[in-house]
Amino acid sequence: MLVRRMNLRTVIREFPDFPEKGVLFRDISPLLKSASALNYIVERFHEHFKVKRVDVIAGIESRGFIIASALAMRFGCGMVMIRKQGKLPGRTRSIDYTIEYGKATMEIQEDAVSAGDNVLIADDLIATGGTASAAARLVEGLGARVAGFAFVIELARLKGRELLKGYDVCSLVVYDE
Amino acid sequence: MLVRRMNLRTVIREFPDFPEKGVLFRDISPLLKSASALNYIVERFHEHFKVKRVDVIAGIESRGFIIASALAMRFGCGMVMIRKQGKLPGRTRSIDYTIEYGKATMEIQEDAVSAGDNVLIADDLIATGGTASAAARLVEGLGARVAGFAFVIELARLKGRELLKGYDVCSLVVYDE
Repeated sequence: MLVRRMNLRTVIREFPDFPEKGVLFRDISPLLKSASALNYIVERFHEHFKVKRVDVIAGIESRGFIIASALAMRFGCGMVMIRKQGKLPGRTRSIDYTIEYGKATMEIQEDAVSAGDNVLIADDLIATGGTASAAARLVEGLGARVAGFAFVIELARLKGRELLKGYDVCSLVVYDE
Repeated sequence: MLVRRMNLRTVIREFPDFPEKGVLFRDISPLLKSASALNYIVERFHEHFKVKRVDVIAGIESRGFIIASALAMRFGCGMVMIRKQGKLPGRTRSIDYTIEYGKATMEIQEDAVSAGDNVLIADDLIATGGTASAAARLVEGLGARVAGFAFVIELARLKGRELLKGYDVCSLVVYDE
């Protein structure tokens, strides 16, 4: 069944100069609050990835957790967390990556995914792709495969897709400006 | 339909001295990773709250986002975020509350919920209840009603329930030690 198209731009708000001057923040709060919009993005991602084997959804802290959890419900699988440094107990793998202004580190538990698992990585937004690409390396470092990436928003000017070349990337709203 | 009981303790791990010495961390990662356990907690919460009107689920950052999003899918409603300070754009309301070692501030967007909305507040765990009770005050400060609280884990010794007296509190795994 093809999902009837909805204009997601009507449920994404823009806030200039947040969290800092010069940044245009895209706020998906109205989207998440709308049952129909939330359901719609889940159906769109499901439509895109249902032909693949997806064993588990990985959510990138913290809005990615929301997307991943909703997708886990729809796909009938579980979800795992990719978190900022120091938040996950037990044995973890970590990776440093570049963000807009500096460096950051994120982590995954060593037993979060297993060799051969097909992992769909979810986040609310792809900008430069640094976070997403680091998440892929964490997943692959544990021997699992990346089934693809699910992003609600893509900021095309930042060319994050180029960092994710070779991966199946599904983004629902692409901003060019 | 009554949900068949599952022993959630088998999918919750304990890590002593995390994130700091003397703290016993309960890790729900195995629960979230298990499709059946994730589905089970959602069904248990739904069983408990389905008799009520629930208009929206509020998730407390950041593991609460996972629970709230899964519940939103099950209840067929949307979700809103209650976040740490400085993360939400636009007009927000904030509240200071006491945590184990000090103070913290959390925020909600002013238009996250509306007067008369019935809001189910979700988090992974209730300890002293400080966070949950602050979340309730944020929701009620916007004129909405708290339909109840959904927690996966309750640490009974910390008596968080007493702070939430008068509310409908559903916790799935209660640890007494």
